[in-house]
Amino acid sequence: MAQGKLLYAQSGGVTAVINATASAVIQTARARKVKVLAARNGILGALAEDLIDTSRESMASIRALAHTPGGAFGSCRFKLKSLEADRGRYERLLDVLRAHDVRYFLYNGGNDSADTALKVSRLAAEFDYPLACIGVPKTVDNDLAVTDCCPGFGSAAKFTAVSVREAALDVAAMAETSTKVFVYEAMGRHAGWLAAAAGLAGEGRDDAPHLILFPERPYDEAGFLAKVQATVDRVGYCVVVASEGIQTADGRFVADAGGGKDSFGHTQLGGVASFLAGRVKDALGLKVHWTLPDYLQRSARHLASKTDLDQAQAVGRKAVEYALKGMNAVMPVIVRTSDTPYRWKIEPAPLEKVANHEKKMPAGFIRRDGHGITPAARRYLEPLVRGEAPPPYGRDGLPRYVSLKNVPVRRKLPPFEG
Amino acid sequence: MAQGKLLYAQSGGVTAVINATASAVIQTARARKVKVLAARNGILGALAEDLIDTSRESMASIRALAHTPGGAFGSCRFKLKSLEADRGRYERLLDVLRAHDVRYFLYNGGNDSADTALKVSRLAAEFDYPLACIGVPKTVDNDLAVTDCCPGFGSAAKFTAVSVREAALDVAAMAETSTKVFVYEAMGRHAGWLAAAAGLAGEGRDDAPHLILFPERPYDEAGFLAKVQATVDRVGYCVVVASEGIQTADGRFVADAGGGKDSFGHTQLGGVASFLAGRVKDALGLKVHWTLPDYLQRSARHLASKTDLDQAQAVGRKAVEYALKGMNAVMPVIVRTSDTPYRWKIEPAPLEKVANHEKKMPAGFIRRDGHGITPAARRYLEPLVRGEAPPPYGRDGLPRYVSLKNVPVRRKLPPFEG
Repeated sequence: MAQGKLLYAQSGGVTAVINATASAVIQTARARKVKVLAARNGILGALAEDLIDTSRESMASIRALAHTPGGAFGSCRFKLKSLEADRGRYERLLDVLRAHDVRYFLYNGGNDSADTALKVSRLAAEFDYPLACIGVPKTVDNDLAVTDCCPGFGSAAKFTAVSVREAALDVAAMAETSTKVFVYEAMGRHAGWLAAAAGLAGEGRDDAPHLILFPERPYDEAGFLAKVQATVDRVGYCVVVASEGIQTADGRFVADAGGGKDSFGHTQLGGVASFLAGRVKDALGLKVHWTLPDYLQRSARHLASKTDLDQAQAVGRKAVEYALKGMNAVMPVIVRTSDTPYRWKIEPAPLEKVANHEKKMPAGFIRRDGHGITPAARRYLEPLVRGEAPPPYGRDGLPRYVSLKNVPVRRKLPPFEG
Repeated sequence: MAQGKLLYAQSGGVTAVINATASAVIQTARARKVKVLAARNGILGALAEDLIDTSRESMASIRALAHTPGGAFGSCRFKLKSLEADRGRYERLLDVLRAHDVRYFLYNGGNDSADTALKVSRLAAEFDYPLACIGVPKTVDNDLAVTDCCPGFGSAAKFTAVSVREAALDVAAMAETSTKVFVYEAMGRHAGWLAAAAGLAGEGRDDAPHLILFPERPYDEAGFLAKVQATVDRVGYCVVVASEGIQTADGRFVADAGGGKDSFGHTQLGGVASFLAGRVKDALGLKVHWTLPDYLQRSARHLASKTDLDQAQAVGRKAVEYALKGMNAVMPVIVRTSDTPYRWKIEPAPLEKVANHEKKMPAGFIRRDGHGITPAARRYLEPLVRGEAPPPYGRDGLPRYVSLKNVPVRRKLPPFEG
């Protein structure tokens, strides 16, 4: 323990495999005799000195984390501002780290978290406190810069492609006398990565999904309705995948067009699929069903991609190795070295290059007509959903997910009024 | 072929395992040298003489049907009326069966289909046409009489319990700073079987789902909101599972309370989860997410229950055996002979006892407070979701679902103007 402790925290929306990263972090650190603390609810726990002693968990529990979705220590949606604007919080963070002899800080999240880790590293340098700050990538949105892909995305992508393929078979069987149009709403407020993944469900022109609506292309209602009708005329039914982030040409979110208030003044929660389904019903008079999978798409550990799981664990291991080597302000990122066969490796990237950047989907991934994916997109996406990694199931037919004890560490500092 | 052919048709909403029944029917008949025709889109194909020659499919394809969701020959939502009111259609059906030397008619569906099969058998007797009519059970709604459970339900139940367990872990991780309430909408317009299955996701009082809303109990908004708030106060978050069929005390569907028209006159498609989420947001001011899995819950073959798959195949095999034995107007039903260990067998039941009846969920399955399941429900449900039966996956990371050739049989009759 002479070398100090490691603090691990989870941030932002959780995924099917973020706990697999946590599992790899803890196992790698244990093997190197480094004690791992975890912050409860991400950076909030670090600020509140609400820390968890992971050494109180059995090795079996830590291994089981690798197949348990959600965020085992709690996550948070909370962004620290600039060093100047939020200096009190950054200094408190450093106080907490120092009080618990933390020499390695691993922040597992998206680009906001990379930014926080970067700023903490700068402040530590300013105060001459020896601290290795490592960002660890995670997000189903797949929008982190530098890394080829983001742990969490591959499993959500696999859920999306499999679900669309399955639901499409259902619709195909019912179309003659019942549902003719089906709309699937995919996560992705800013980029259409998950909507694109749905494209893996089919190959030919008449395979589902017949229409993908990307946030990267303006939503054109007349064009959309015409294509739905043409597909129903030609194929007998139409499966639409719409990204939650699609916008009209003048920049309004289509999701905001639905919703509003009903006649009782109650809030109507809308969404893109519900809105599009309503338009299909009104304008085309076709029977329509729609789904909003919401959290199911990012928590479906039962359908995790093996590639994604491997990468989630690899970034966790490498993050610890980088930290113990004394590297600072870096993130282990995934570098693709070959499409066929798919090969990848982990390399360190400066947090500066990741923080506050957003990776857009390449224009070349969207088919010229704007409603499908290109072979280039398929080459990129396909390896990420490859391989199965099911959790163990109990005698009761349900996955055996672990629940940690999360034993708190005794506080050493006065409460923080931040 | 001297003994005549067998006609198989699928009816009503399809399931993750109805094709497993089809696969068993065709394999069993092939082994007995009986040729199997399939009607395209259920009874509609039979009326239109739109028949498929399943002998043109390879054995590999027929075996692959057992792991392919949807309805391979197409299904339909179309109910024949009484023999008197719809006599023309019943006689046409008999003409088609006779023209193709069909001596065994297997109708795979719910209680409407059992009714159709029963009436066809009566008409055949009236015309002295030797025909064995067998109803084959199927429905995710689990509402068929006589049979202990319905093929299709166990897999949808497993999807429900697993998805609720997974999403609940997500919500638990985010609750401190983000989503505090999550609402899952389960299928079941008349009975809360699938909502009840969600109860398998947790056991203790503070395990998700914290609140199940059954169609068997009136929806009481004040009570609902108070329980949600109390759960959030006690546990930190609240997972609600609501059956699409819940009604207020005066018999109005809650699903109809949402929806309506927006300010542009567009149809707002609502649903129960969306409505409840809106009420939670308005009345309690809590951040809420919701999901409408819709067809995903009944097509998720990737998460099929092994028990369900076994039973779907068993009823298919038995249906053929009963037919070839000369039994008529019966349905192979599932008889539970023991809970622990779970044991079941297939027995013939008269279609008269199944047709047009609806099995309700026993009152003893709902907890006294109306918002959870009892140990009796757990004993009933748990074996039905037990065991995993994943489909084979391709190198592309997606399940390999089969697509049949569906070669049409040459028509022998003039078109039917029914």
